[in-house]
Amino acid sequence: QERVQNKTPLVNKHLKSFIATKDGQLVTGLVAEFLSHFNLNYTLAVFGPETNMASELEARDELVQRLGLSETEETKNAPLLSLILSQSRKLTSPKHTAQ
Amino acid sequence: QERVQNKTPLVNKHLKSFIATKDGQLVTGLVAEFLSHFNLNYTLAVFGPETNMASELEARDELVQRLGLSETEETKNAPLLSLILSQSRKLTSPKHTAQ
Repeated sequence: QERVQNKTPLVNKHLKSFIATKDGQLVTGLVAEFLSHFNLNYTLAVFGPETNMASELEARDELVQRLGLSETEETKNAPLLSLILSQSRKLTSPKHTAQ
Repeated sequence: QERVQNKTPLVNKHLKSFIATKDGQLVTGLVAEFLSHFNLNYTLAVFGPETNMASELEARDELVQRLGLSETEETKNAPLLSLILSQSRKLTSPKHTAQ
């Protein structure tokens, strides 16, 4: 029983509180969608249990809807994170090219 | 030798061509930063070899610089993907709240 005391807790508190937020759940879902998009099945098999999200991960369609995105034939070939990145850049790049 | 023929190739072509692009490398780096931020070390231990990116993954600071982001004390508590998501939303939400 003494040996158990110094073990790292199995609950990842920082991640748990992150996933409890709407955006945290979305971001975690987007990471899973990336893994799924590229058939990174070994990574996904560890990601699900390690995040404790295996049963709660949303399908791409659901994420698209919650993010208010619209898919085209072009966007379907890339993970949703690519779409998010290019949208975020539309906002930041004008500032940075002005230097 | 016959048995080998029907095996899935070990090279993930779709991912490989994605990572060959600048944005693909950034997105993959952001996923790794997410895993690293939350100490998802088991997932990361599989992600590196499965993406063949183990030795090429960039540190958070490098990603911040390449993405043209600026960190605050607040943003440091979250993975970079949260920052990217909130920036992308600044662009999309006005349209969607106007419905």
